[in-house]
Amino acid sequence: MTAGSTIDPNHPAFAHIPVWVQEKLSPKAVETIKKVHDWVENECIPAEPIVKAQIELDKKTEWKTPKLIVELREKAKKEGLFNLFLPKSFGDLSPGLTNLEYSCCADIMGKVYWAAQTMNCHAPDTGNMELLAKYCNEGQKKKWLLPLLNGETFSAYSMTEPDVASSDATNISCRIEQDPSDPNMLVINGRKLYGNCKWNAELGFYILMACSDPNNPNPWSRHTMVIVPKDTPGFRMVRNLTIMGYDHAPEGHGEYLYTNARVPKENIILGTGRAFEIAQGRLGPGRIHHCMRLLGQTERAYELALLRATDPAKKPRGKLIGAFDSNIERLAHIRMTLDALRGVVLNAAHTMDVRGNKAGKYAIAQCKVLVPAQCAELIDECMQMYGGQGLTQHTPLPEMWTYARFVRIADGPDAAHRHQVGRDEIKGAGRVRERHEGYRERYRELCGKWGVEEETFGMPRDGSGSEKAGIMRTN
Amino acid sequence: MTAGSTIDPNHPAFAHIPVWVQEKLSPKAVETIKKVHDWVENECIPAEPIVKAQIELDKKTEWKTPKLIVELREKAKKEGLFNLFLPKSFGDLSPGLTNLEYSCCADIMGKVYWAAQTMNCHAPDTGNMELLAKYCNEGQKKKWLLPLLNGETFSAYSMTEPDVASSDATNISCRIEQDPSDPNMLVINGRKLYGNCKWNAELGFYILMACSDPNNPNPWSRHTMVIVPKDTPGFRMVRNLTIMGYDHAPEGHGEYLYTNARVPKENIILGTGRAFEIAQGRLGPGRIHHCMRLLGQTERAYELALLRATDPAKKPRGKLIGAFDSNIERLAHIRMTLDALRGVVLNAAHTMDVRGNKAGKYAIAQCKVLVPAQCAELIDECMQMYGGQGLTQHTPLPEMWTYARFVRIADGPDAAHRHQVGRDEIKGAGRVRERHEGYRERYRELCGKWGVEEETFGMPRDGSGSEKAGIMRTN
Amino acid sequence: MTAGSTIDPNHPAFAHIPVWVQEKLSPKAVETIKKVHDWVENECIPAEPIVKAQIELDKKTEWKTPKLIVELREKAKKEGLFNLFLPKSFGDLSPGLTNLEYSCCADIMGKVYWAAQTMNCHAPDTGNMELLAKYCNEGQKKKWLLPLLNGETFSAYSMTEPDVASSDATNISCRIEQDPSDPNMLVINGRKLYGNCKWNAELGFYILMACSDPNNPNPWSRHTMVIVPKDTPGFRMVRNLTIMGYDHAPEGHGEYLYTNARVPKENIILGTGRAFEIAQGRLGPGRIHHCMRLLGQTERAYELALLRATDPAKKPRGKLIGAFDSNIERLAHIRMTLDALRGVVLNAAHTMDVRGNKAGKYAIAQCKVLVPAQCAELIDECMQMYGGQGLTQHTPLPEMWTYARFVRIADGPDAAHRHQVGRDEIKGAGRVRERHEGYRERYRELCGKWGVEEETFGMPRDGSGSEKAGIMRTN
Amino acid sequence: MTAGSTIDPNHPAFAHIPVWVQEKLSPKAVETIKKVHDWVENECIPAEPIVKAQIELDKKTEWKTPKLIVELREKAKKEGLFNLFLPKSFGDLSPGLTNLEYSCCADIMGKVYWAAQTMNCHAPDTGNMELLAKYCNEGQKKKWLLPLLNGETFSAYSMTEPDVASSDATNISCRIEQDPSDPNMLVINGRKLYGNCKWNAELGFYILMACSDPNNPNPWSRHTMVIVPKDTPGFRMVRNLTIMGYDHAPEGHGEYLYTNARVPKENIILGTGRAFEIAQGRLGPGRIHHCMRLLGQTERAYELALLRATDPAKKPRGKLIGAFDSNIERLAHIRMTLDALRGVVLNAAHTMDVRGNKAGKYAIAQCKVLVPAQCAELIDECMQMYGGQGLTQHTPLPEMWTYARFVRIADGPDAAHRHQVGRDEIKGAGRVRERHEGYRERYRELCGKWGVEEETFGMPRDGSGSEKAGIMRTN
Repeated sequence: MTAGSTIDPNHPAFAHIPVWVQEKLSPKAVETIKKVHDWVENECIPAEPIVKAQIELDKKTEWKTPKLIVELREKAKKEGLFNLFLPKSFGDLSPGLTNLEYSCCADIMGKVYWAAQTMNCHAPDTGNMELLAKYCNEGQKKKWLLPLLNGETFSAYSMTEPDVASSDATNISCRIEQDPSDPNMLVINGRKLYGNCKWNAELGFYILMACSDPNNPNPWSRHTMVIVPKDTPGFRMVRNLTIMGYDHAPEGHGEYLYTNARVPKENIILGTGRAFEIAQGRLGPGRIHHCMRLLGQTERAYELALLRATDPAKKPRGKLIGAFDSNIERLAHIRMTLDALRGVVLNAAHTMDVRGNKAGKYAIAQCKVLVPAQCAELIDECMQMYGGQGLTQHTPLPEMWTYARFVRIADGPDAAHRHQVGRDEIKGAGRVRERHEGYRERYRELCGKWGVEEETFGMPRDGSGSEKAGIMRTN
Repeated sequence: MTAGSTIDPNHPAFAHIPVWVQEKLSPKAVETIKKVHDWVENECIPAEPIVKAQIELDKKTEWKTPKLIVELREKAKKEGLFNLFLPKSFGDLSPGLTNLEYSCCADIMGKVYWAAQTMNCHAPDTGNMELLAKYCNEGQKKKWLLPLLNGETFSAYSMTEPDVASSDATNISCRIEQDPSDPNMLVINGRKLYGNCKWNAELGFYILMACSDPNNPNPWSRHTMVIVPKDTPGFRMVRNLTIMGYDHAPEGHGEYLYTNARVPKENIILGTGRAFEIAQGRLGPGRIHHCMRLLGQTERAYELALLRATDPAKKPRGKLIGAFDSNIERLAHIRMTLDALRGVVLNAAHTMDVRGNKAGKYAIAQCKVLVPAQCAELIDECMQMYGGQGLTQHTPLPEMWTYARFVRIADGPDAAHRHQVGRDEIKGAGRVRERHEGYRERYRELCGKWGVEEETFGMPRDGSGSEKAGIMRTN
Repeated sequence: MTAGSTIDPNHPAFAHIPVWVQEKLSPKAVETIKKVHDWVENECIPAEPIVKAQIELDKKTEWKTPKLIVELREKAKKEGLFNLFLPKSFGDLSPGLTNLEYSCCADIMGKVYWAAQTMNCHAPDTGNMELLAKYCNEGQKKKWLLPLLNGETFSAYSMTEPDVASSDATNISCRIEQDPSDPNMLVINGRKLYGNCKWNAELGFYILMACSDPNNPNPWSRHTMVIVPKDTPGFRMVRNLTIMGYDHAPEGHGEYLYTNARVPKENIILGTGRAFEIAQGRLGPGRIHHCMRLLGQTERAYELALLRATDPAKKPRGKLIGAFDSNIERLAHIRMTLDALRGVVLNAAHTMDVRGNKAGKYAIAQCKVLVPAQCAELIDECMQMYGGQGLTQHTPLPEMWTYARFVRIADGPDAAHRHQVGRDEIKGAGRVRERHEGYRERYRELCGKWGVEEETFGMPRDGSGSEKAGIMRTN
Repeated sequence: MTAGSTIDPNHPAFAHIPVWVQEKLSPKAVETIKKVHDWVENECIPAEPIVKAQIELDKKTEWKTPKLIVELREKAKKEGLFNLFLPKSFGDLSPGLTNLEYSCCADIMGKVYWAAQTMNCHAPDTGNMELLAKYCNEGQKKKWLLPLLNGETFSAYSMTEPDVASSDATNISCRIEQDPSDPNMLVINGRKLYGNCKWNAELGFYILMACSDPNNPNPWSRHTMVIVPKDTPGFRMVRNLTIMGYDHAPEGHGEYLYTNARVPKENIILGTGRAFEIAQGRLGPGRIHHCMRLLGQTERAYELALLRATDPAKKPRGKLIGAFDSNIERLAHIRMTLDALRGVVLNAAHTMDVRGNKAGKYAIAQCKVLVPAQCAELIDECMQMYGGQGLTQHTPLPEMWTYARFVRIADGPDAAHRHQVGRDEIKGAGRVRERHEGYRERYRELCGKWGVEEETFGMPRDGSGSEKAGIMRTN
C-alpha cells in the first residue's frame, strides 16, 4: 500500500518529488520524510552558524563532534531518526525504507552538510556499516559494527594512495605482510590519502585496503581489507588534507604514513586476498548517497538564489535582480536541470530496489557522472547571483560548491565512470550491429518490391569485407 | 494490473525504459510497444532510402505522400496501429494507452522521421485532432475531424507570423473580419509562416489563428480560430520554407499570403474571440510528442555512433575508433545524457496522466527546454564521429540534427519556456522567503540556548528594512 | 612603411581589426582591403538572392557558375582583385599582400559564401594553385596551373575515402598502378569522397592522392599525387554529396568511383611515392583561409542578430528583442567571442609571415580547433534570435551555420588537430619537468635559510623513484 | 627600436608570447621580462611553501607580510624590479614600460599569487597609486602616495556594500556628512565589504567611496572619495571575509562598519561629489592587471597538468595519464584556449597604449568577461587530472581556481561587463541598419539588370513600415 494520494503536493518536502515516486512511498516513508524535513528545517538549518562557531572553538583544543550535533544525535536516536539508510536485511535496526524512500530523506538531509550525521547517515560510515555487516564474522561485528550502529564511534575508509594511480585499484601498493616475529600479527607499510582525520577524537578505526600478495598472477586476488584501530603504533597522520582550502573539521581528510604498523591478523575482513570481492559488494546504494544529498544542497542554493532575486534591497539599475530576464531564465534553468538530476538519482535508487545493486551499476555511474558536475555548475550560478558576497562566508554557497566539486572525484573521478559505461556499451555493440545488418536484408527485399535500385553509401556492392563494416544509413 | 514483471529487460524495445515505467505498463501497452517496435524495425528503418527515392520522384510532378507510406498507413490501420495517441476520451477510437505508455511508443517511432505518420500519429495532425475533438460542434467534427481520424486527409496549424513577434501570440496581426457583402462569410488578410506546405496534394485544411477584434480591451479576447480549406480563393502560398535547407517534402512548411480570402463563418471554432481559450486547451501531451520522438531519434543516432566506433574498416592510427578513450567517454556521455532526458519526458507524460495537463505545465516546459537542445548536441557528437561522411546523406544524422534543432523553436523558442518557468518560480518565492525568515527566529532561540553570539551577515542588527531583505545564511 | 595611422577606425572594413594589425598594414593593403570591402558590399551581398535564383535555374539543365559570378570574375580580374591570396613568390601575379593583410581581405570576403570565388580566392583552388606552383614541372604548370590562375577553369582535391579512416592519411587505399598494357599510363581503382562535383561544367581536373606502393616499409612513401582530368574514362561520379542537406551547387562535393581509370604517367606530381612530401608543403596559410572567411561570415550573422534585436516590428511582451537583458548579454557574448577568435586567426597569419609555415603549425591547429566550432555556436545563437524564421531561407543563417559546421571536419576533424597539438606538448614536457625539478633544489636551500622544515606532498623523502615523479607543489 | 629579433623564441619567458608582441618589445623590456622571469622562477615558486608556513605562524599573533616577502621587496627595490606597472607619466619612478610590455611581466608574476607584491605591483595598491597620483594635491601625495611607492605601507579600496546592489555604484549608500561640531571634520556611517583586512599590520589607509549628497538631482554627483586612515575611531572591522573559504591572509578582505567615524575634510580627493569623475579615471590598465596575472597562473596550472600527465608513477590501466587520448586532447584544449585568452589581454593592453584608456574600454570588458571564467574552467580541468589529490593542498591548484573565480566578480560581475558592451552595440546598430538598407536598393537595381523577380522574405512589398524593419537576407 502506498500513500501517494495522501501527500500534499505543495508540502515543501514533496513539492519536487516526481509523481511516480510519490505513488510508491509507503505511509511510514511519508511520515519519515516529513519528520526528516521538520528536523532539518528546525534543528539543522537554523543551527548552522552555531555549529560553525562550536567547531572553531573546539579546534583550538581538540577536533571533535560539536556539542550541538552530539545532542541532536542523542535526540534523533530517541525519535527513531537514526540509521535511516539501513536496508531491511538489518532486521530490527532497519527502519524498513526502500532505497527510493531513503533517497527522499537524504535529499532533504543534504540541505545542511552535517545533517546526515545527526541521523547517523553520513559517509563513509554508512558504506562501512554495510560492509562490516555483510562481510565480518560475528566477533568482528560485535567489536566494530555495533558501536557504529549505536553512534558511539566513527570510522574511516582508506584506499586512495598518493604514489600510484589508485583510481585503478589494482595499483594499490601499500603493503600488508605477515609479521615475521608474531604469527598473529600483520605489518603494514605505505602511504594513504583521504581517510578521515585522525585528529577527530571520536574516530575509532580505519578499513584499510592494502596489497598482501603482489605477485599473485590474478591481480584481483592481490589485496586484502583489514581493520586498523586508530591508536595502532607505526600509523601516523602526516597532515590533515584540505579540500579547496576547507579543513572539513572535525571529520577532516588525513594523509597517512604506515611505518611497520602492526595490527592483529583477526582484523582481516573476509579473508586474505579478498579485498576486491568486498569492494564489489560495497558497490550499492551507498555509492549514490552523496548524490542524493547534493540534490538537497543544490535545492537550498537555489532557494538562496531565489531570495537574492527578490531581495527588495538589491536593485541594480533600479530593478529587482529577479526582474532581469537573464536572471529569470537562469533561475528556470537551475530549477529544471536540478529536477532532471533528481530524476536520475531517484531512478537509480528504484532500479536497485527492484533489480538489485548489480543491475543498478549503470544507473549509479550515471548519477556519479551527471550529478556532481552539474550541481557544481548550478551552485556556481547561484553564487554569481550574489555578486561579491556570494564567495564569502555570508552565504553557505562556497561550501556547497566545494562539496559538489569534491563528489566529482570521491569514489573515483567522473572520467573513470564514463570509461566503465563506455566500455560496456562497446561490448554490447555486437547486438546493435546484428540488428543493423538485418535492416540491409530487409532493405533489399523492399527494393525489389518497390522497384527501386539499391543504394550503397560509401561501400562496394560486391559483398567484400568492408560492406558490413560500412553499414550506415539503413542498407 | 501491470505487466512489468513479464517484460524481458533485454528486449530492445524496453532496454532503455526505466524500471518505474516498465512497472506501470499494462499488458496491452507492452504488446503495443512490441508491435510498434517490430513495425519500425521491419517496415520503416529498412525502407528509409526507398521513401526518399519515392519523394524525389514525386516532387518532379506533385508533392504527395510516397506510395510506401500510403501502403503502410493502410496496413497500420488494419493492424490496430493507427491513432495510438488518442486518449480514452475518444472512446472506441482510442487504443486506451496512457500518455506514459504512448510515450514509449512515440520514442520508438522517432527512430524514423516519417514512422509516426504511418500510424497517423504525426504532428501537427495529432494536436489538431485533439483540438477539433474538444472544441468543434458535431457538424464540424464530421466534416473535418473524421477524415483526419480515418487517415483520409491531412491538416495544418497556422499561427506564426513574419511581421510581428508571434512567439507572444497576443501580437498576432493577421486580420479576420466580417465580409461586408455576405453575412455568412469572413474575410482574411495577412501573412503566415509554417503552416504545412500547400503543394502537398493530400492536405485538406488549415486551422488559422487570426485577429478578429484588435481593439478589445482584453488582449486574450481579440483572436479567433477558424478552419480554412486549402482551395480557398485569395489564399496563396508564397514559397515552401526550408528548414536548415531541407524542404521537408511532402509535408513542407509554407509561407502564406491571405488577400481578401473568404471562408464561411461556420468554420469558426468554439466562437469568435475564443482562440486563446482553445490554445490553452491545446497545451497538453501533444506538446511533448516531438520530444518523445527526439529520444528515439537520438537513440538511433547513438546506435550509428556505436557502429562507427566498432567498424573494423575504420582504424585511425591503427585502432578502432571505439578503442580511443575519448570516444569511449563520448559514447558514455551520450548514453547517460540521453537516458536522463528520457526520464524527463516520461516523468512529464506520467505527471499529465495523474495530475492532468495543467499540473503538467512545468514538466512540459522542462521537456521543451532540455530535450531538443541537448539532443541536438548529442546528435552532433555522433555526426562528428563519422568525420566527413557524417555531414553527408551517407547517414541520416544531418536530418536528425535538423529535426532536433527545429524542435528548439517549434511551439515557441526555448527562451520563452524558460521565461515562463522563471516567472512562476519568482512568483512563488514568497513562500520560500517566509520559510527562511522562520530560520532566523529559530536561530535566535538556539543562540540563546547555546550561548553563542548572534551573527549577522551584511545586515544591520537594528531590525531595519534591509534586515529581512538580507537573509542569506540562516540568520 | 605602414598605414596604420591613416586608417579611419570607424570604417566598417577596419572597425574590428585589432590596432596591432592596423599598424602593420601597408598603404597598398589598406587600399585593397577597402576595395574588397566595397566589392562585397556593393557587388556580392545585394546580389545573393540573384545568384541563388540563377543557380536554381541552371541546375535544371547543367551545374555551372552563375552568370552574375562569371561577370564579376571578369570585372575583378580587370580591377586587380583577382588571386589576392598569391604570395610574393608568384612574382607579378602576386598582389604582394602578407598573410596578415590577406587575412583582412578574406575576413570580408567571408560575408558571402561565393564572394571569394569572384576574386579567384576560393577553396580548394587556392591550395591547389599553391601546390601546383610549388611542385609541378614547367610543362605541368603551363597545362594545369595557368588556366586556374587565369580563372578559366576550376580544380578539385581528392583525398578522403569512404572505406578507411582517411583522416589518418596513411590509410588511403585507392590504388594507382602501372598500366600493364601501356608504359606511359597508370591505372586507378578505388573510391573517393569530397572532390568537387563533376556535374560542374567548368571543373577541369582533380588532384588525386592514391596508394602506389602499399608494401613500402616506409608508410610515408607509399602514396602518389596525380592529376586526373575530368573526362578520364573509368572515372565516375556516383552522386553529389550534400552537406547537412545542401547540395552546394554548382561546386558540390562528389562521391567518386575509379574503375580501371587510366591517366598518363606525366600527370604524376613531383614523383611516385612523394605524396606526403607534397601534402606537408600544402600545410601553409591555405589551411586557415576557411577560418578567415568564417570570421566575416559570423560578423554578418552578428549584424543580422543586431538588426533583429532592434527591429521595431518585433516586440515580444511589448519590448524590442534587444531590450531584454538576456539578449543584450547574448550580443555582447557573440561580439567579444568573435573578436577573440579573430585575434587567433590574425596571429596565426602573422606568425606564418614572420616565422614561416612550419613554425605556424601550432597556430594553424589552434585556428582549426577553436574557430569553426565556436563560430557555429555563435551563428546558432543568432539563428535562435530569429525564432522560427531563423531556420528558413528568410535569412542566410542556416547556410552560414552549415559552412561553419563543415569546416569543423574539412582538412581533418578538430579532434585530429587537438591530438596533434597535445602530443607535441607531451613531447615537450621534459623541459617543464626539468624546470620543476630545479624548484625542488632551490626550495631545499630556502628551507635551510628560513629554518622551515621541508614539506613533502604525497611522496617519500628517501629519494626513491617516485619522488621526482611526484613533484607537485614546488618541492 | 625593438628587440623582437634578439629574442630566443624557446626561452620560457617568451615561448607563449605572440610574435606580434615580441616585435614590439624594447630591449629594456626584453631584459626586464627576463629578470622578472628569473625572479619568479628562483625567488617565488620555490619559496611558496615557506611563505605559507610563515603566514600560518604569523597568524597566531598578528597578520603581517611574511618575512620572506619583506626581504624580497627590499631586494626587488634595489634591483629595479619595483613598481614596474608605473606608466611614464610618473617620471623617474617609472621604468618606462608600455602596458603591453608590463603585461608580459605581469603574466609571469601571476605564476605565484604573491609574486606581484614582491615587486609592489599588487592590487589594489597599483590602482590606488594611479588614482592618488592623478587626483591628489601635492600635500596628499606626499602623505599618502609616497609611502605606497616606497613600499612602506599598503592601502585598501572600499566601495562594495552589503546592503545595496553596489555593482551599480549609484546605489552606494554609506553616508559621509559634515561634522556638525567641527567644520574641518566629516562623519561617516555605513557598511562596506571587501576593503583589505584591517588585521594586516602594515595596512595604512582606505580610499572610501561614499554618498555625500543623496538628493543631488544628478546621480553622478552624489558621491565623494575620501581617505580613511586605518586607526580612525568609529571605524570597525566586523570580520575578515573568506573567499571560497580562504582567508587570504595577511591581506584579507574585510567587512567594515562605520559608526560616526570622523576623518579630516582635507582627506577628500579632488572635491566633494566628484567620486564618479575619479572612478572613471581609474578605468585604465589597472582593470586588467588581474587578468594578466591569471594567464601566468593558468600557465602554471597547465604545467602541473603536463607533469601529472607524464608522471611515471601514475599509470591507471597500465598507461601514463598522458597516454590516454582524452587527456592528450584535454591538454591541447587548455594550451590553445589559454593562448587565445592571452591574445585578448595583450590586445587590450596594446589598444590602451596606442588609443588610450577610453578607446580600450571595450577591450577591457572583453578581458574581464572572457578571461576569469575561462581560466577557472581550465584550472578546473587541471585539478581533475590530479584526481583526489588535485583538490588538496598537495598542489596550488585549488588556490589558483579560487583566484580565477574571484576575479569573475572583482571590479564587477561579468554580467555587468557584458551588459555594458551589449548596450553599446545596440546603440551602434543604427549604422548597421543603414548599411543593410543600402543593400536593398542595390538589390533592386541588380534585379532589374539580371531580369530576376525581386524576392521578399516575410514582408509586404508595399513599402509599409515593417518593410524596413523586416530586412533580413539582403533585400
